[in-house]
Amino acid sequence: MRHVLSALVQNQPGVLAHISGMLASRAFNIDSLAVGPTENPELSRLTFVVNGNDRDLDQVRKQLEKIVTIVKVVDFSGTEFVERDLMLIKIRTEPGRRSEVKELVDIFRARIVDVSSDHVMIEIAGQERKIEAFIEAVRPFGIIEMARTGRIALGRSDSMSADIEVGDPTHAADLSQPA
Amino acid sequence: MRHVLSALVQNQPGVLAHISGMLASRAFNIDSLAVGPTENPELSRLTFVVNGNDRDLDQVRKQLEKIVTIVKVVDFSGTEFVERDLMLIKIRTEPGRRSEVKELVDIFRARIVDVSSDHVMIEIAGQERKIEAFIEAVRPFGIIEMARTGRIALGRSDSMSADIEVGDPTHAADLSQPA
Repeated sequence: MRHVLSALVQNQPGVLAHISGMLASRAFNIDSLAVGPTENPELSRLTFVVNGNDRDLDQVRKQLEKIVTIVKVVDFSGTEFVERDLMLIKIRTEPGRRSEVKELVDIFRARIVDVSSDHVMIEIAGQERKIEAFIEAVRPFGIIEMARTGRIALGRSDSMSADIEVGDPTHAADLSQPA
Repeated sequence: MRHVLSALVQNQPGVLAHISGMLASRAFNIDSLAVGPTENPELSRLTFVVNGNDRDLDQVRKQLEKIVTIVKVVDFSGTEFVERDLMLIKIRTEPGRRSEVKELVDIFRARIVDVSSDHVMIEIAGQERKIEAFIEAVRPFGIIEMARTGRIALGRSDSMSADIEVGDPTHAADLSQPA
């Protein structure tokens, strides 16, 4: 099963080496990893996605909690959370076909951030399946190169979740995907 | 000086441990790191931002190129490139002040992705300085928590860059920042 884990860690050289070394020693491959600053300048947040059975992963979580530079670990599996991913992608645009790419960009609520005579660079953020759907939609034009951030996640509040399901922009973004 | 490096690596357990171990042994602290899939299912792309003098970093780049699981390393410093960062942030919203937050969300072209009676969760993508400006703009409301991806980058084409400077959405996005 796929697990999305979030760890608050102290900003010190070697913390990432410690964590990635521990995961590698247990042969856990990291599907994606995002490390960025937090509201506290002394802490960074690592969000990583790993594949593994629940028991193995529970052991990993416990091991992580023992590392002194790790402040807190959360496994989002089985909880309500919002996850987002970001991609920059360069697409080939033959003469006269740029408008077709522009149409897809609008449908997926993406943004064109650079243009040349034979390609465009596009920025798109959203749930992983939206980004995957966009990649499939533009593949026929020719993908030159791409960079993705890996996922980040925050726990969703359950208090009003029933109320906002319809107007939820997350849900609206999903509707923008071709069936 | 701050360097944005991009490395294409093979999808194997241990590659990240190898790279982060090498950086830690030279006491390079990683400001941000993003690891995600690429157009080739056998390769991942790591984008990392490190602080260091140019000579030390050139040595790091050469060391990285010697790691067999690393296919290619690019240092974007001194080149034209597009960089993007993504953030999820939970902001406290006291009764009657949600519309003020919504206004900032619109100005910064961000999106509200979750709502509860006392907070909202917002998604925002853009250049680092745009994200930093948004954090400062919403700070007075109260930041509950945040997660950031770390930067990704792709080289910009120079062929038409002079032409698109005015209509460039990157530039337009910058204008959305309060002065």
